[in-house]
Amino acid sequence: MAGKPPKDTLLPWTVRESRLVLDNPWAKVRRDTCRLPNGREIEDYFYWEGGDFSQTLALTRERQVVLTQQYKHGVKQVVTELPAGLVDIGLESPLQTAQRELLEETGHIAQTWHLLGTLNVSAAKSTTRAHIFMATDAVRAGEQELDATEAIEVKLVSIEQLLEMVERGEILDVTSIAAIFLGLRTLGRV
Amino acid sequence: MAGKPPKDTLLPWTVRESRLVLDNPWAKVRRDTCRLPNGREIEDYFYWEGGDFSQTLALTRERQVVLTQQYKHGVKQVVTELPAGLVDIGLESPLQTAQRELLEETGHIAQTWHLLGTLNVSAAKSTTRAHIFMATDAVRAGEQELDATEAIEVKLVSIEQLLEMVERGEILDVTSIAAIFLGLRTLGRV
Repeated sequence: MAGKPPKDTLLPWTVRESRLVLDNPWAKVRRDTCRLPNGREIEDYFYWEGGDFSQTLALTRERQVVLTQQYKHGVKQVVTELPAGLVDIGLESPLQTAQRELLEETGHIAQTWHLLGTLNVSAAKSTTRAHIFMATDAVRAGEQELDATEAIEVKLVSIEQLLEMVERGEILDVTSIAAIFLGLRTLGRV
Repeated sequence: MAGKPPKDTLLPWTVRESRLVLDNPWAKVRRDTCRLPNGREIEDYFYWEGGDFSQTLALTRERQVVLTQQYKHGVKQVVTELPAGLVDIGLESPLQTAQRELLEETGHIAQTWHLLGTLNVSAAKSTTRAHIFMATDAVRAGEQELDATEAIEVKLVSIEQLLEMVERGEILDVTSIAAIFLGLRTLGRV
């Protein structure tokens, strides 16, 4: 078909130069100079590096979904999401992160854990991966264990209520919505 | 309940100092010094600023879904996603972006457009919003109009094939998966 690029244009770029232009424990931004398969050069291609996180669709024994509500300073709003947190690279696996964050943020532990997928948050702008888990037979095991900078409300809703919240725009986090879809597909609920 | 923070802790943080530590047309990172409702200070809170984009679940008259395949340098892989692109702030609305990107990336135009939602890509780490559209009665109107730095394959699949691709992990973009969920819910297909 005229104008359609042939498949061999879908090749990786060659990195000719690469450096961290922001290198902070909480924020790493990399700038690459790249040569494209068609010979063109991109002088300054910026992307966020690292920050992999785990996020969990946790269902209690009563088939209620465990949600968190907290202020988040990127969007400067209180948001409702699935429990999530950054993987402490080198110190824990994504599964261990998911289990730790579910306990710390909501006081829940769960019997069974299932990896639903490892997704891209922004394939162009970030190396970040989201490890999406489903946990079932969750029970409240204790109190939250929050950092001094965290304030989180825990909310339990039925699957029907969860779907209504998504449809009403009360859950706006793309990764939570993707996790809800993958989890409820696995359960045969959507 | 002991240990559970009261609702009034879910208050915005106060920004005491704010500056762009990376200020480039393609990458803006802001650093804020914040005071929390509990009196604590966070010295250096970093987040990505801007980069709103539109993404579209486009269905042709034959009920096929329009997908793109391209190399993306954040994850350094060829990815399959829904057509998407950055909103040219001040120059176009998110709907105009969605329409422009569908045409440029895939050569398609569509009769009817519907905003499914405006989502958060990472409420903690970014101000970025994703404007999610569904377009129906899409038809191929011409060739792609790609930048010199773009090489995109277009792929048409049925809704059944799309769901299989999501389940097999062939579509890993969180925003595409969220858009597929919202769109297919609207159509009563999941």
